[in-house]
Amino acid sequence: MRPVAVVGMGKTAFGAFPDRDLRSLAVEAGEKCLKNAHAALSQIDAFFLGNFAGPSFTGQNHLAPYISTALGLRDIPATRIEAACASSGSAFFHAYNGVAGGVYDAVLVVGAEKMTSQSTPKVTEILAGAGDCAGEVKAGSTFASLFAMIACRHMYQFGTTRQHLAAVAVKNHANGALNPDAQMRKMITMEQAMAGKPIADPLNLYDCSLISDGAAAVLLAPAERAGEFTDKPVRVLGIAQASDFVALDQKPDITTFPAVRRASEKAYGMAGIGPADVQLAELHDCFTIAEIIAMEDLGFVGRGEGGPYTLEGHTARSGERPVNTSGGLKSKGHPVGATGVAQICDLVLQMRCEAGGRQVPRHSLGLAQNLGGSGASCVVTILGTV
Amino acid sequence: MRPVAVVGMGKTAFGAFPDRDLRSLAVEAGEKCLKNAHAALSQIDAFFLGNFAGPSFTGQNHLAPYISTALGLRDIPATRIEAACASSGSAFFHAYNGVAGGVYDAVLVVGAEKMTSQSTPKVTEILAGAGDCAGEVKAGSTFASLFAMIACRHMYQFGTTRQHLAAVAVKNHANGALNPDAQMRKMITMEQAMAGKPIADPLNLYDCSLISDGAAAVLLAPAERAGEFTDKPVRVLGIAQASDFVALDQKPDITTFPAVRRASEKAYGMAGIGPADVQLAELHDCFTIAEIIAMEDLGFVGRGEGGPYTLEGHTARSGERPVNTSGGLKSKGHPVGATGVAQICDLVLQMRCEAGGRQVPRHSLGLAQNLGGSGASCVVTILGTV
Repeated sequence: MRPVAVVGMGKTAFGAFPDRDLRSLAVEAGEKCLKNAHAALSQIDAFFLGNFAGPSFTGQNHLAPYISTALGLRDIPATRIEAACASSGSAFFHAYNGVAGGVYDAVLVVGAEKMTSQSTPKVTEILAGAGDCAGEVKAGSTFASLFAMIACRHMYQFGTTRQHLAAVAVKNHANGALNPDAQMRKMITMEQAMAGKPIADPLNLYDCSLISDGAAAVLLAPAERAGEFTDKPVRVLGIAQASDFVALDQKPDITTFPAVRRASEKAYGMAGIGPADVQLAELHDCFTIAEIIAMEDLGFVGRGEGGPYTLEGHTARSGERPVNTSGGLKSKGHPVGATGVAQICDLVLQMRCEAGGRQVPRHSLGLAQNLGGSGASCVVTILGTV
Repeated sequence: MRPVAVVGMGKTAFGAFPDRDLRSLAVEAGEKCLKNAHAALSQIDAFFLGNFAGPSFTGQNHLAPYISTALGLRDIPATRIEAACASSGSAFFHAYNGVAGGVYDAVLVVGAEKMTSQSTPKVTEILAGAGDCAGEVKAGSTFASLFAMIACRHMYQFGTTRQHLAAVAVKNHANGALNPDAQMRKMITMEQAMAGKPIADPLNLYDCSLISDGAAAVLLAPAERAGEFTDKPVRVLGIAQASDFVALDQKPDITTFPAVRRASEKAYGMAGIGPADVQLAELHDCFTIAEIIAMEDLGFVGRGEGGPYTLEGHTARSGERPVNTSGGLKSKGHPVGATGVAQICDLVLQMRCEAGGRQVPRHSLGLAQNLGGSGASCVVTILGTV
């Protein structure tokens, strides 16, 4: 297994783009990435697409060659990976393995989703397909209701409060307001976050990530060849994917996700670091409670401490460990299949000192955590310039 | 890159099973495979699922952990691969790369699809999603009509006849009649095959593969460790995946599939063999014309010679190079996401001399060709006991 680096990145703005289709978004991100890496099409050995539900959202299936050929890539393996909201984190993981294992030299990974052409009820139904349709979905569950149950239990068990949840939203909106590619570029106050329209008690509108269109792309290459593409390579120091039950009722404890714990343990081991070494992170805040639990499962804080840690400002840009400087899924947007690669892109921007107004001072070791469903899939990636 | 072997296999019968859901089929195949390989769950390092359109056929998405956890697998990476009808061929390809590259030791690959719970018009619509929805599908194309155009052109250009197409169907039905797992276990005569109900001229009912439920599984491991699982390992001598345009109208010549040519060239190169060395093959006969073109693109025969070669009996069980001794997609059935792995399973049965009444005498070097859409994805795998 040889060292691997991210040698290029590109992304679209996230938002609702009625005039753009899935392919044009994916192509825009892919072309920006190739340009960013000064890479020629002929250098690309494989194409991976992370996409959750393109066929359901748009009708179009067989999306990997549909997009790769529009980028001008032919002949090479073009493969779509689906792992719910962790689809492009997983695509990145498999692309990494291909380069690390010596199968490929340069691999383009694109994550993309086009969601806003469907009505919100239809989007909710399609997203629910990442849960257990025969069980929880049949009984009326949506992802907001599943994470509401998780939040209720976390509140009961650890004393987490509505204010803790709101603190996640306020912070992520403050970050997103500085991200030119974010869908919702506005700050919110604690009062606003506390008083949002109810969605699934105790979660309100400001606890829920957005319905978005968007795409993101990265180019991976062997670290020893990174200089051919960029003078600002970012090394993949550790990465792992893990899995668990899809249905919430199969989990013995719904306030912790074993797949996140397992993936992070492996990724930390590979990188030879511990959670205390992580300087900044992009975490999967599909709901505010998810960011709190992620910090606990990743070992940033002890169980039940994620809420107070956020409220005390430790995860703000000015805090000891900034989380979601991009704005996160909450404010940047959550085009499901794009999210995993977008997290990598946002870490790379920080590590290159290209994050503009949201740049943080300590940026040499970052972690991305991409969650699928209510914890059935997770990919944890540790990046470094050290 | 280290040598890799297939060390176990398992499959369900293919057919219409109103009482079975996608997961139960996938679990049956997976469990049979693990038993066949004498493998414990704790030995499995990764799980790959090939599935084309589970979310559209059944509503359930996020299928990899949904199935892997039902098999008793937790923690490990569980990933769904979608590449239209080449989904599980592609899953096998990526699993192979993981083992060859040293990422994993033992990888379980399952291909599965549940199609018959939908009406035939709905199935036709879902399958069309593997074509170009904004172009050819919007204009009314179905896969039968796309392959009908391909057949027309092949007839015009090379003199291929209805009789040549029918010869493929007669042969594959003769093979499927001997396969206890086949969906359609009946022989047909040339007269029947010629007189089938029209579907999309010049293709009739007997030129079209079936709508099926089913699953298939294989276990991959490093060749040097194969003995831990089986005394009948089958080596993966060569494998490649390639891609091309999704829309037929983007292809300069619709009577040949560049992705098949490219994938087979790479696979032959890896295996150090040429097409003349292939003793038996499982080819992607989604339509009879597809088997004819596959033989041409794989170099078994020259362009335009696939029809006469079939009619002369060279691809029959008693011929010089048996093709689709399983019955092929035509008679064995075509649960889309299962097909690629099922092809591997059927070659393994031949190579282990476990193919029963359809056993052929020369079985030490076999090739599987799994096609996605009208040629936008292709995986070619060369297996050997030599």
